[in-house]
Amino acid sequence: MSRIGDNQVLVKVIELTEAADPRLADYVRLRDVNLRKSLESVHGLFLAEGEKVIRRALRAGYAPRSLLLTERRRDALADLEGEVDAPLYVLPEPVARSLVGFDLHRGVLGSFHRKPLPAVADVLAGARRVVVLEDIVDHTNVGAIFRSAAGLGVDAVVMAPRCADPLYRRSVKVSMGAVFTLPYTRLDDWFGGLETLRALDFRLLALTPGPDSVTLGAALSGTGPTDRIALMLGTEGDGLSARWSELADTRVRIPMAGRDIDSLNVTAAAAIACHELLRTAHPAN
Amino acid sequence: MSRIGDNQVLVKVIELTEAADPRLADYVRLRDVNLRKSLESVHGLFLAEGEKVIRRALRAGYAPRSLLLTERRRDALADLEGEVDAPLYVLPEPVARSLVGFDLHRGVLGSFHRKPLPAVADVLAGARRVVVLEDIVDHTNVGAIFRSAAGLGVDAVVMAPRCADPLYRRSVKVSMGAVFTLPYTRLDDWFGGLETLRALDFRLLALTPGPDSVTLGAALSGTGPTDRIALMLGTEGDGLSARWSELADTRVRIPMAGRDIDSLNVTAAAAIACHELLRTAHPAN
Repeated sequence: MSRIGDNQVLVKVIELTEAADPRLADYVRLRDVNLRKSLESVHGLFLAEGEKVIRRALRAGYAPRSLLLTERRRDALADLEGEVDAPLYVLPEPVARSLVGFDLHRGVLGSFHRKPLPAVADVLAGARRVVVLEDIVDHTNVGAIFRSAAGLGVDAVVMAPRCADPLYRRSVKVSMGAVFTLPYTRLDDWFGGLETLRALDFRLLALTPGPDSVTLGAALSGTGPTDRIALMLGTEGDGLSARWSELADTRVRIPMAGRDIDSLNVTAAAAIACHELLRTAHPAN
Repeated sequence: MSRIGDNQVLVKVIELTEAADPRLADYVRLRDVNLRKSLESVHGLFLAEGEKVIRRALRAGYAPRSLLLTERRRDALADLEGEVDAPLYVLPEPVARSLVGFDLHRGVLGSFHRKPLPAVADVLAGARRVVVLEDIVDHTNVGAIFRSAAGLGVDAVVMAPRCADPLYRRSVKVSMGAVFTLPYTRLDDWFGGLETLRALDFRLLALTPGPDSVTLGAALSGTGPTDRIALMLGTEGDGLSARWSELADTRVRIPMAGRDIDSLNVTAAAAIACHELLRTAHPAN
């Protein structure tokens, strides 16, 4: 039981003191990537970290399996009582550390049920600006791209089958919860999947530093706010596959200016490209 | 001794088999941040990782203290014989792992002497577009900002006294070596240091998501290629200090478009802002 200010809201919590308690199984060894990938896919769960991000997950309609607070932060989510149908575990800091494998500075974790991925056509309905990720392998990069895309007005993200998971803990954290608010889904078919976008009148722009490309600004010149544009981004390092590059309508590049550095990080390129897409929707900027 | 192709270039190398060998002291426990900060500042050294980045450091005139290769990559730098006055150590992979604390996938490390930081006036001489970093604390972010700035034609970087070290291993790696090619220095004085830029006719633009700001596009409207612009970026999370914000000529923002995400990662913001600066130098893009 805990008291909040003058309102005396009482929150029912479950105090646990053993890291090995089976009710805490969702939170075990958060830095063990292989264990986590297996555990999270078997149980259809994902973890969110920090009060702000957890509130975004709840607002976006994700159902919690449980919430976890350290004693120091035990009141952080107290206002959620009655709105959240899930146990709220409170742990002493050392128990939390032993459970997750590091110091839980933010002191607030949530385990959530995943939702089924929507159909590509549903995600694209009404969308004008979308980002298509081929095989981005780094969770940090996936999260950063979602954050930029969401903040800069992109309507949806479509991912190739092998693109890293946006709901992995690191992606969620770096995205600041943008993975909850920005609609996304995965193509079933890498080889032919882009045809779905083409059939819906999306113009496919492949972002690539290659020589046979036009500047993004030139490619977008004359684009109207309601035109449908799909910006394709490829793997860190190698960029888009030959197949996806060839399927694009236009190969585009971000203008560079030397100093022995001839390419941008994929997240920097994505931010610039999303900013340019937003300019076409609101040309005054 | 090792042979390269048909040229029979002979490279003198020193084979070592003990991680505790004092000649390897520069490379010990690379993931121990506190140890490394102390060791690197005491000896005035920094580490570069990977063949491409090491070659960039050499081209930029940094003098190596030594180079380190794993056996699998023993020929990676063989062409440098006669150009590099430093020992080249070759280690079996398990010895390298025991020394640095992880698997050295790239198999190539270099320890270099730092150079004295140039005077602010020297770094700014001839510069038209500069980035000013207040207290960016994360080495990854510093490296990413250097890479974007160098690739997008920024002429120099000026850092506040507490900004994280661009020559820390992680910064160097993420920058892809841009920290070697892009001139930079540090202000001695946080409180009054910006006056140096103002005295040199730089227009100070403070990037901030705050309400009393104009869009970056509007602020740059009418800027000519030879005008001097200093783009100020603040700490992750909190942004620029009140003092630096007040010292700016103009507070600028990157236009956002909702979805519950109201700010960008500092590296995404920096990339977009550098791209916009480049547009003012080459308006056709």
